[in-house]
Amino acid sequence: MNETGRPQDFLMSNPRADRVRDVAKLAGRPARLKRGKFLAEGPQAVREALVLHRERRAAGESGVVHEVYASESCLERLPELAGLAEGVGLRLASDDVLAAMADTVNPQGIVAVCDFVDVSLESVLDAGPRLIAVMCQVRDPGNAGTVLRAADAAGADAVVLTGSSVDIYNPKAVRSTAGSLFHLPVVLGADVEHLVALCKERGIGILAADGYGTLNLDQLQDENAARRLGASEATSDYPLEAPTAWLFGNEAQGLSEAELALADHRVAVPVYGSAESLNLGTAATVCLYASARSQRGS
Amino acid sequence: MNETGRPQDFLMSNPRADRVRDVAKLAGRPARLKRGKFLAEGPQAVREALVLHRERRAAGESGVVHEVYASESCLERLPELAGLAEGVGLRLASDDVLAAMADTVNPQGIVAVCDFVDVSLESVLDAGPRLIAVMCQVRDPGNAGTVLRAADAAGADAVVLTGSSVDIYNPKAVRSTAGSLFHLPVVLGADVEHLVALCKERGIGILAADGYGTLNLDQLQDENAARRLGASEATSDYPLEAPTAWLFGNEAQGLSEAELALADHRVAVPVYGSAESLNLGTAATVCLYASARSQRGS
Repeated sequence: MNETGRPQDFLMSNPRADRVRDVAKLAGRPARLKRGKFLAEGPQAVREALVLHRERRAAGESGVVHEVYASESCLERLPELAGLAEGVGLRLASDDVLAAMADTVNPQGIVAVCDFVDVSLESVLDAGPRLIAVMCQVRDPGNAGTVLRAADAAGADAVVLTGSSVDIYNPKAVRSTAGSLFHLPVVLGADVEHLVALCKERGIGILAADGYGTLNLDQLQDENAARRLGASEATSDYPLEAPTAWLFGNEAQGLSEAELALADHRVAVPVYGSAESLNLGTAATVCLYASARSQRGS
Repeated sequence: MNETGRPQDFLMSNPRADRVRDVAKLAGRPARLKRGKFLAEGPQAVREALVLHRERRAAGESGVVHEVYASESCLERLPELAGLAEGVGLRLASDDVLAAMADTVNPQGIVAVCDFVDVSLESVLDAGPRLIAVMCQVRDPGNAGTVLRAADAAGADAVVLTGSSVDIYNPKAVRSTAGSLFHLPVVLGADVEHLVALCKERGIGILAADGYGTLNLDQLQDENAARRLGASEATSDYPLEAPTAWLFGNEAQGLSEAELALADHRVAVPVYGSAESLNLGTAATVCLYASARSQRGS
């Protein structure tokens, strides 16, 4: 037995072994779709995956983490990970093996093979959400991950990606979420018209983030603040404290005319300087935070 | 003469020509430093560079754009670029030549060799700035560019990078600014202690963006809103409408203890959900927008 309490002879050291290749193949979409699994890389992502795994198991649901591969030095450095991984298949692996499995140059000594974590749109809506981030035709994995992370930080109840968006299980997207993929419900492959119809049935307002929008996010925030502070009884075009689904569009083209037409309002993030626009991740952050603050203050 | 009004025989078509290699070398820092030049790629960046070039020339200052290389099809598609480039060395180049010059796979038919645009810290401070974004030891070119773009959108008066930060003239950083590099004054290689001392002399407050900060950005915004709306006379720990320099730290480690100690206050962006933090670009956006809104409302 070594210091981590696992038998030394279980160390995987052949980077060309079939099992290693099988894990490495999860960097590609065909292998992910075929197996319904994806790879979480690095201590932060693996920790969050294991925490969700335990929560789901404790609730009598199926788990999330299928296998964990870690170097001895990683488990020595972060012993809580070995504890969290109890009851999950944890295998010691050499740095060469981990490098061959991972999409990143440096997986920091640990990767986990995880079952897909996405849920159905209906389950999200049945839980009575107040804030939803919807990505329409977002193509860049880093952008999708950044919006998901921002939605998590803003306390959103769910993130939805439409069918033509990037695969959130792409390794770069998973990394960009910084573990947030395991924090809040994610719906994939949604049809935006169907989503909007279901939201409207439930009284959830639809706001489109649009640089050419006629409503100004600052104004909506100011009106909300005035109501909260009792400084004004004025009604506004849209009460930012209402349950809301935000639509965010493609990074290059923004939302399509058809997508814009589905929204109750088109809302612009004001640009005070000379920038043409904000990038997708930062614009989504400003919008989601504006809703979160308004909802929490009310 | 071809349709763009330039002689066909000037078309550069050899991707291995010395001149092409010289331009391509600007992807590396040594060539940039030696020549004091960098490459702007794509129509948006080149357009903003040319606009700044004309503004500076009109003010009797030295220009920005040294040479422009463009494909015929690009100039046909975007004829205003040919107009803007009047008086600047504009050369027609084949797609192969443009691909060999550029760092991107697809430079969209146009690149410009530009002189460094950074300015001195003193010139920035002498102009009486109200909002400055300071990047301390930021290492990722995409992050640095995103913060610069967000600072531009928030109407900041300047962006400062400390000496140990990434080179903002790195091609990926330039791309991430989406043209904002040519919109507002940028100071490079600053010493953060010196910067803070000069800001304090001029009555500019120093806020450190810090996930563990004791002041909450929401609270500062609410207090500002209450004052603006006349709902409260309450003073606050820091009036967000005051002239402010925000310090943003390294993407992995945040601000160092030494950097934190220089600030008047450490301010946290609230995280409502389970995310450990926001990424650098989104956190900086929330902070800069909070200051911008407070300053503009007052």
